[in-house]
Amino acid sequence: MAEKTLPKIFKYVDENVESYKGLLKDAVAIPSVSCDPKYREECVKMVYWMRDKLKEVGASTEIRDVGYQNFDGKEVKLPPVLVGVLENDPKKNTICIYGHLDVQPALKSDGWESEPFDLVERDGKLFGRGATDDKGPVLGWLHAINAYKATGEELPVNLKFIFECMEESGSEGLDELLMQKLKPEGFFDSVDYVCISDNYWLGTTKPCITYGLRGISYYFLEVECAKMDLHSGVYGGTVHEAMSDLIYLMNTLVDKDGKILITDIYKSVAPLTDNEQKLYNTIDFNPEAYRQSISAHKLAHNGVKEQLLMHRWRYPSLSLHGIEGAAFQPGAKTVIPGKVIGKFSIRIVPNQEPEEVEKLVFDYVHKKWEERGSPNKMRITAQSGRAWTENPEHPHYQAAARATRLIYKTEPDMSREGGSIPVTITLQEASAKNVLLLPMGAGDDMAHSQNEKINVRNYIEGVRFDLT
Amino acid sequence: MAEKTLPKIFKYVDENVESYKGLLKDAVAIPSVSCDPKYREECVKMVYWMRDKLKEVGASTEIRDVGYQNFDGKEVKLPPVLVGVLENDPKKNTICIYGHLDVQPALKSDGWESEPFDLVERDGKLFGRGATDDKGPVLGWLHAINAYKATGEELPVNLKFIFECMEESGSEGLDELLMQKLKPEGFFDSVDYVCISDNYWLGTTKPCITYGLRGISYYFLEVECAKMDLHSGVYGGTVHEAMSDLIYLMNTLVDKDGKILITDIYKSVAPLTDNEQKLYNTIDFNPEAYRQSISAHKLAHNGVKEQLLMHRWRYPSLSLHGIEGAAFQPGAKTVIPGKVIGKFSIRIVPNQEPEEVEKLVFDYVHKKWEERGSPNKMRITAQSGRAWTENPEHPHYQAAARATRLIYKTEPDMSREGGSIPVTITLQEASAKNVLLLPMGAGDDMAHSQNEKINVRNYIEGVRFDLT
Ligand SMILES: [Zn+2]
Ligand SMILES: [Zn+2]
Ligand SMILES: [Zn+2]
Ligand SMILES: [Zn+2]
Repeated sequence: MAEKTLPKIFKYVDENVESYKGLLKDAVAIPSVSCDPKYREECVKMVYWMRDKLKEVGASTEIRDVGYQNFDGKEVKLPPVLVGVLENDPKKNTICIYGHLDVQPALKSDGWESEPFDLVERDGKLFGRGATDDKGPVLGWLHAINAYKATGEELPVNLKFIFECMEESGSEGLDELLMQKLKPEGFFDSVDYVCISDNYWLGTTKPCITYGLRGISYYFLEVECAKMDLHSGVYGGTVHEAMSDLIYLMNTLVDKDGKILITDIYKSVAPLTDNEQKLYNTIDFNPEAYRQSISAHKLAHNGVKEQLLMHRWRYPSLSLHGIEGAAFQPGAKTVIPGKVIGKFSIRIVPNQEPEEVEKLVFDYVHKKWEERGSPNKMRITAQSGRAWTENPEHPHYQAAARATRLIYKTEPDMSREGGSIPVTITLQEASAKNVLLLPMGAGDDMAHSQNEKINVRNYIEGVRFDLT
Repeated sequence: MAEKTLPKIFKYVDENVESYKGLLKDAVAIPSVSCDPKYREECVKMVYWMRDKLKEVGASTEIRDVGYQNFDGKEVKLPPVLVGVLENDPKKNTICIYGHLDVQPALKSDGWESEPFDLVERDGKLFGRGATDDKGPVLGWLHAINAYKATGEELPVNLKFIFECMEESGSEGLDELLMQKLKPEGFFDSVDYVCISDNYWLGTTKPCITYGLRGISYYFLEVECAKMDLHSGVYGGTVHEAMSDLIYLMNTLVDKDGKILITDIYKSVAPLTDNEQKLYNTIDFNPEAYRQSISAHKLAHNGVKEQLLMHRWRYPSLSLHGIEGAAFQPGAKTVIPGKVIGKFSIRIVPNQEPEEVEKLVFDYVHKKWEERGSPNKMRITAQSGRAWTENPEHPHYQAAARATRLIYKTEPDMSREGGSIPVTITLQEASAKNVLLLPMGAGDDMAHSQNEKINVRNYIEGVRFDLT
């Protein structure tokens, strides 16, 4: 790109670090928690705040209404989606940038060292909810544009923006907007590729470019023994308890080493090629540091690097998440739950199709249920999203690798993610173009957890990266 | 007792039904929820309210401070215990009455048809939190005394009162008060027996006198795989998950028919004698109505009456209550919990001693854990309370049976309870006398559940019963 103007722009960025931190502080201060309608006004406020920032750098913007969600039987208005366009020079490439403005809930009492919605700096790290997921990366783009404008340089690309505020809550309304409104309206016609900065480096020191995501197949396994909760003193010994049936079923799904026990589940997993295997050898990943960062006694697969990465990225994994309807509070509650819903999910991978995986799970669970011979009622339902991979040899990926070398003076790792960003697939379908995942945050940023942070270095070098 | 004065007193009771309902309404209106310190002032208010009522009928009362509880790391003052004495005629028997003034939490949104703290009558039933557990039964004693006073008759017994306001939260502070204060002070010296009205008839039509309670041995089974919760997209496939270990352990405890699988657990259960077996044949209990009342598809033990009652009263049962630290909310949370605590309990019976049961459980769980071979950390702790039985042939029980015949014109069922009222054992120890459990409420009163109620009939006939 415009490599000779970059030093001047980088200088501007370095001089404005404090102002970038200040803007992130303002953004974090808006508690745009999307899962709880109580914060819906804050979500709306966050969208308008970002709209004003885009306008300030000269973008034309639109606030797009996406209707209502059903929450606990009530209709609740969804926060709107912010859509923007900056420049439209037919000689330049057009990048569509996706990001999200909403955050996970956070309370200081959850174990935060400082107020989650008050960004504070400690040891070169900026702590606050949304710092790395995803307000920091979104603002990175804004700062990048601002740096070009302030130094009087021309932007090397045209930009389009899609910023939503429901990502942490299933992106409700977004798919319809993308596929049924923006696409037919021609929004994507000029787009050359899509950029998403909503994932993380593998470690903490080496940048990554991400070419694959696992999908997810999430299950609700319900067993009912009575129409209400029962007191174990009164009913214990006289009913077939739903909990013991559910625990039995959940115990049939996965073994202690993480091997999934569902019949034929590994059958359609894409075979490992020699070329692919080689990619894993050079990746910078330290299993011991990874183990220590979570205080695990011992990692799976005996802690072997390549095995860990493959089981995180290219093989399916099954996790038992919890049980709805049972006692979950501290203390000694003596309930016999009347209806319990076990939650588990399988991270699925190429070439597993969601429908196929769901059928295998349903068949297996029904077979185990028959073996159990319980008189209770059992029901299993699922919701699933596909896995995604791109070819890391594609020119867009190679261009991103060049930019990485320029900023970070190092070769990026071509990585995959164990998680799912469902909008990736929708954006790929809507644009019919490549999607690039360009993580800005480090692997220890603790998105969704207590003490979420972004390193000042990642935030600022991320801005510089966005510039190239 | 004074059987010739009774018709006059019964007449008075029948004329004052509306006033008794009004007083229960006043008591229910005080939300004396003990588990949440937010309501602590209401608990204190409830104790003073009852103190004033006892004073009105001529009792001398004392408000006894029982110190502080530790709640979430904070010291919170416990509600005081109300102690009272009414008459002290050495020619009469002295009964010590225990009851509790606190209630379980309740919100209309939990599924109540009317405001839980506003007592309302529908179809001969009084709905409200505490109506049957335990404000109604406590007020029954008050009305009984009042009826004697109002009709100018002499009370046939001396009365002592112990009314606490922490029963639903482990009766904190009460044991110390009973054993270390009231007992040395001589409070129990003149007591002939203790009455507790804090349990329920077996069914809905036939009164019961209760001569046995199961104890409880409650377990906290903790497995830890990481120091924090992990995102299943990022960590799934790379850690030995605590949840699958916990589910494995919980699945080894009990089979689908409720048989406890812990080695030797049934060994010290008191053998069933022929005499005891015969008691069960005559008891009025309809398994089909019981099944329908909870909408169970099929009851345990093929729904055979005697088997159901024995497994509810005289055999141990094991219930899996839930998991702390795992996902419990509605929705599709994709967490890998870092630390989970499985909760289960065994209702224990004569002659199982808590220490013995705990040892059997610990040994068994540790053996199963070794078989599992997981690298995670496992820990199990317990808290237990003994079972209790009295001889139903004792004169006090026979006197209670006579009173039942007088009021209800029917032979009471000599019943046991599947649950635990730990204070029963402490009161027995403190007084060194018999304890009688005299349930006032019906078996379908739904204590601790939504739409708790007491039947007007039970409330009023309970008053009459207390008079005899
Ligand atoms: Zn995100
Ligand atoms: Zn997120
Ligand atoms: Zn009670
Ligand atoms: Zn209770």
